[in-house]
Amino acid sequence: MTPEDSRLDALEARLRALEDERDITRLILSYGPLVDSGCAGDVAALWTEDGVYDVDEILMTGQAEIEAMVRSAPHQRWIAGGCAHVVGPPHVTVDGDEATAVGYTLMIVNTPDGFALRRATANHWRLRRTPAGWRAVNRTNCVLDGREESPDLLASHFPTATRHRP
Amino acid sequence: MTPEDSRLDALEARLRALEDERDITRLILSYGPLVDSGCAGDVAALWTEDGVYDVDEILMTGQAEIEAMVRSAPHQRWIAGGCAHVVGPPHVTVDGDEATAVGYTLMIVNTPDGFALRRATANHWRLRRTPAGWRAVNRTNCVLDGREESPDLLASHFPTATRHRP
Amino acid sequence: MTPEDSRLDALEARLRALEDERDITRLILSYGPLVDSGCAGDVAALWTEDGVYDVDEILMTGQAEIEAMVRSAPHQRWIAGGCAHVVGPPHVTVDGDEATAVGYTLMIVNTPDGFALRRATANHWRLRRTPAGWRAVNRTNCVLDGREESPDLLASHFPTATRHRP
Repeated sequence: MTPEDSRLDALEARLRALEDERDITRLILSYGPLVDSGCAGDVAALWTEDGVYDVDEILMTGQAEIEAMVRSAPHQRWIAGGCAHVVGPPHVTVDGDEATAVGYTLMIVNTPDGFALRRATANHWRLRRTPAGWRAVNRTNCVLDGREESPDLLASHFPTATRHRP
Repeated sequence: MTPEDSRLDALEARLRALEDERDITRLILSYGPLVDSGCAGDVAALWTEDGVYDVDEILMTGQAEIEAMVRSAPHQRWIAGGCAHVVGPPHVTVDGDEATAVGYTLMIVNTPDGFALRRATANHWRLRRTPAGWRAVNRTNCVLDGREESPDLLASHFPTATRHRP
Repeated sequence: MTPEDSRLDALEARLRALEDERDITRLILSYGPLVDSGCAGDVAALWTEDGVYDVDEILMTGQAEIEAMVRSAPHQRWIAGGCAHVVGPPHVTVDGDEATAVGYTLMIVNTPDGFALRRATANHWRLRRTPAGWRAVNRTNCVLDGREESPDLLASHFPTATRHRP
């Protein structure tokens, strides 16, 4: 291998790492616009066929259940009334063909008294590289209402981080 | 062309794609800090000379009208009272010298009762590569209060996405 | 130097620039999940040993004071009650081994009446490349309640920007 070849190899690996993070970030950021416009099949396609979406009390297993949630009357009522799932910028960590990401979502709804912040959730994503690109294998949302699972979920993305226990 | 040359060409094209997305993201993210500090000319310079900024009832055509909005008494009152235009992370799609982006803005204002979420809007950007870099050609904000245009605007960024119509 | 070498040099420099912005963005985005889960030492490690964190009335100088803030009873009560520091996407500008970034943080707390937006702050970061990677040298938060320092802080990130003074 020539010195040029090894420099090219190194550049390609570094570029690939940036592209992976970009692809995963774009996937996560497409969730809000797709779910707030009721693009049910497109939301479901962010996950693998048997991907899991765990939102506190409701557990969706597989694309069909995720699509059904978006089509459901309760979700359609959010859209009809005015709703924003504002997904914050994710912190993404790639490890080969697997990745995790952590972030927040603010669910904002239009009410007779103006816009209200209905829920603030911690979000943790597990993702996998598939032949069709990165897909979510598991997304867990935990509402930040003081339950212990929520800060635990946030910390779980950082393998060496240690929670202070008062 | 040598094999090294074609690898270099491919790397440069991929890098250029990442740089374009980075440049567009930076342009969009500079809007909030510039508008909340009243940097009127700098806000206007994010658009092309004849760029359009469509915010529900108010339609601004050309940099002079955008700059005038920032200089206007109502906008200056927002700044004086305390105001944050929190622009979420955009989902950017580049196609040669044109691009679109979609995202959300939360307009937060300080009130005697504390901070209030005055508006949540869907934002859609059309951008163009100019000799001076990427510039906005058109930005449309639609308030997410249940009007049909808002989810339509969110979905419009994803050409193959299909809205579920209940 | 061969033409291939100079192309490789240019590619490496451009890639390094993107990696620097990515590294700084990830550092900034890790603040929220780490502070909301009480990972006190990990929060402090985002700064240099003598790094400064200036949050309106409270000024923390050095990692030990930052870590103590996270361990403090008031901060632990925020976590126990439900709290989200939603850090928006930063606008990052790198200049060699120094960088600055600007953005917003929304501090959201769970209350008996639901989630409330307690504070919206302008955030300005100064960062430095160290042997261990990028670290914050100074972070200043200014609450956007109408005080002049806050729009000044937002504008300060853009050296050529000019505030309109009504």
